[in-house]
Amino acid sequence: EIYARLKSELLDDPAFDFTDDSRQWIDRMLDYNVPGGKLNRGLSVVDSYKLLKGKELSEEEFFLASTLGWCIEWLQAYFLVLDDIMDSSHTRRGQPCWFRLPKVGMIAVNDGILLRNHIPRVLKRHFKDKSYYVDLLDLFNEVEFQTASGQMLDLITTLEGETDLSKYKLPVYNRIVQYKTAYYSFYLPVACALLMSGEDLDNFIEVKNILVEMGTYFQVQDDYLDCFGDPEFIGKIGTDIEDFKCSWLVVQALARADENQMKVISENYGKADQSCVMKVKAVYKDLNLQGLFSEFERTSYEKLISSIEAQPSKAVQEVLKSFLAKIYKRQK
Amino acid sequence: EIYARLKSELLDDPAFDFTDDSRQWIDRMLDYNVPGGKLNRGLSVVDSYKLLKGKELSEEEFFLASTLGWCIEWLQAYFLVLDDIMDSSHTRRGQPCWFRLPKVGMIAVNDGILLRNHIPRVLKRHFKDKSYYVDLLDLFNEVEFQTASGQMLDLITTLEGETDLSKYKLPVYNRIVQYKTAYYSFYLPVACALLMSGEDLDNFIEVKNILVEMGTYFQVQDDYLDCFGDPEFIGKIGTDIEDFKCSWLVVQALARADENQMKVISENYGKADQSCVMKVKAVYKDLNLQGLFSEFERTSYEKLISSIEAQPSKAVQEVLKSFLAKIYKRQK
Ligand SMILES: [Mg+2]
Ligand SMILES: [Mg+2]
Ligand SMILES: [Mg+2]
Ligand SMILES: [Mg+2]
Ligand SMILES: [Mg+2]
Ligand SMILES: [Mg+2]
Repeated sequence: EIYARLKSELLDDPAFDFTDDSRQWIDRMLDYNVPGGKLNRGLSVVDSYKLLKGKELSEEEFFLASTLGWCIEWLQAYFLVLDDIMDSSHTRRGQPCWFRLPKVGMIAVNDGILLRNHIPRVLKRHFKDKSYYVDLLDLFNEVEFQTASGQMLDLITTLEGETDLSKYKLPVYNRIVQYKTAYYSFYLPVACALLMSGEDLDNFIEVKNILVEMGTYFQVQDDYLDCFGDPEFIGKIGTDIEDFKCSWLVVQALARADENQMKVISENYGKADQSCVMKVKAVYKDLNLQGLFSEFERTSYEKLISSIEAQPSKAVQEVLKSFLAKIYKRQK
Repeated sequence: EIYARLKSELLDDPAFDFTDDSRQWIDRMLDYNVPGGKLNRGLSVVDSYKLLKGKELSEEEFFLASTLGWCIEWLQAYFLVLDDIMDSSHTRRGQPCWFRLPKVGMIAVNDGILLRNHIPRVLKRHFKDKSYYVDLLDLFNEVEFQTASGQMLDLITTLEGETDLSKYKLPVYNRIVQYKTAYYSFYLPVACALLMSGEDLDNFIEVKNILVEMGTYFQVQDDYLDCFGDPEFIGKIGTDIEDFKCSWLVVQALARADENQMKVISENYGKADQSCVMKVKAVYKDLNLQGLFSEFERTSYEKLISSIEAQPSKAVQEVLKSFLAKIYKRQK
């Protein structure tokens, strides 16, 4: 498996003189944090590259595209390890957050940093002689910067004071989602595939915009499903209301609520008590946020399809449509 | 001033759509964490580049070398912000650690990440068209990886259990210092200057080794001065003994102590009580660690000088000697 190969290369990196203890630490840390996600982002690189190439990949091409996919998974692991610390979270992917393990604690901060540092190590080992090597470095750097900037916006908007709903407005919401999630989850995999295909990313600004739109649409779905999805299907019980999250639902509710409903939200949002949660959900239902979401889903889809069909390249259209097909009307 | 220019460019980076709040946050965060050090690392780039060039720098060259110097200061700020969190430190450079400020807290983790992300933004803006651009990215990536790896080694050696002196051995000490401090503080500035001079770093492996040796020598001095230096001169009162630090002194003491002295160390090392500290210091004196240090200083210096004089380039010799002159027999 490719993950195992990349890991063992990292554990033998000559740039650091490992002790047995430190090799073991990294080994365990990687296994705990890197695999185990849905690998959507990673697989997208391979799928997109196949569509762009228009025929089957050679073994070498498959390996390289998968390697970039794994780099995105590494990036994701880095963000999640640190995000869980900042959010004081307890669980992630059905197990305790890495920093919650007794022997880890704040060492997790440095582990996050190491995860991040593994990416250029992998890129250097496998892509150094490629003509697009420097573009790959620039791409990962830019996307990481955007994600960290989105995270900052999220932190200073939603943590400060902790109970100030006045900042939960749609433009803020959109900006957080765009930077914190969409660039690395939606744009980055396709951009990797484009670089491997020899393309210049400057010629794909509109593709970037479309993917960022899709990322936003995906996050709105995520927020919707957190409240109205089937927990059996999603595999977890949503807690956005309890957690005082800047969710699309509360943003829309605040924009539509009358004085009375506003009072209910501000008195009950962010409380763990289930009766508080139910009062907030009742307001959501009264405001017909389910209908609003269906409408949003329909118009987003139509806008996206028409932007996609305006793309000159059929292969690029296919890449974008395959992404959209994966998420349109998803139930989980 | 160059710092002000770089900061304002970052605050207007088109890759992120800043809100007023987030621009203000970064502005404050940078001013709190980036300047205010001794700027040794940053200034070394300019000094080294001057010596390599052999004549005065043009305004443009001065600006570029200073910019790389500031990138190293940014890197340092990133490491320090996160290190203080991991060490639960209270003060840094005479003020509260950034994460200790009431409005900051764990947002400091992401601020550290942002500091790190600023470096490739600066490099892209000012060096993208240089022939050595990709080497600069590789260099910063490699050195960051080594520093984070050294930090890991430090954390898993000195935090685990917190009171296990059995791991404090010279090879471990040397490895931590080499990776955690020497690469970024000593090798990186010179490597930046070499790249600006059009050199290929693969031809300067021995220069790297010399600088890493110097970095180790510097850290041993630091540990020595923490205990035996003049607080008036150093500007702070050392607390390595209280903090259970893996200092060169305790490593040497443990290697030399008889059963009795060993008992004194293990019972008193890492305790805040001043009578405990004094007992440890008494053992250091009985073991004549001051004499050992003088001897270490003398032999290090001789070894370094002869390695330096074996260098084929006179300009490179001068760079290395100027570094060495700055630190040899320093009292602070
Ligand atoms: Mg979180
Ligand atoms: Mg978060
Ligand atoms: Mg969610
Ligand atoms: Mg520290
Ligand atoms: Mg530390
Ligand atoms: Mg010290």
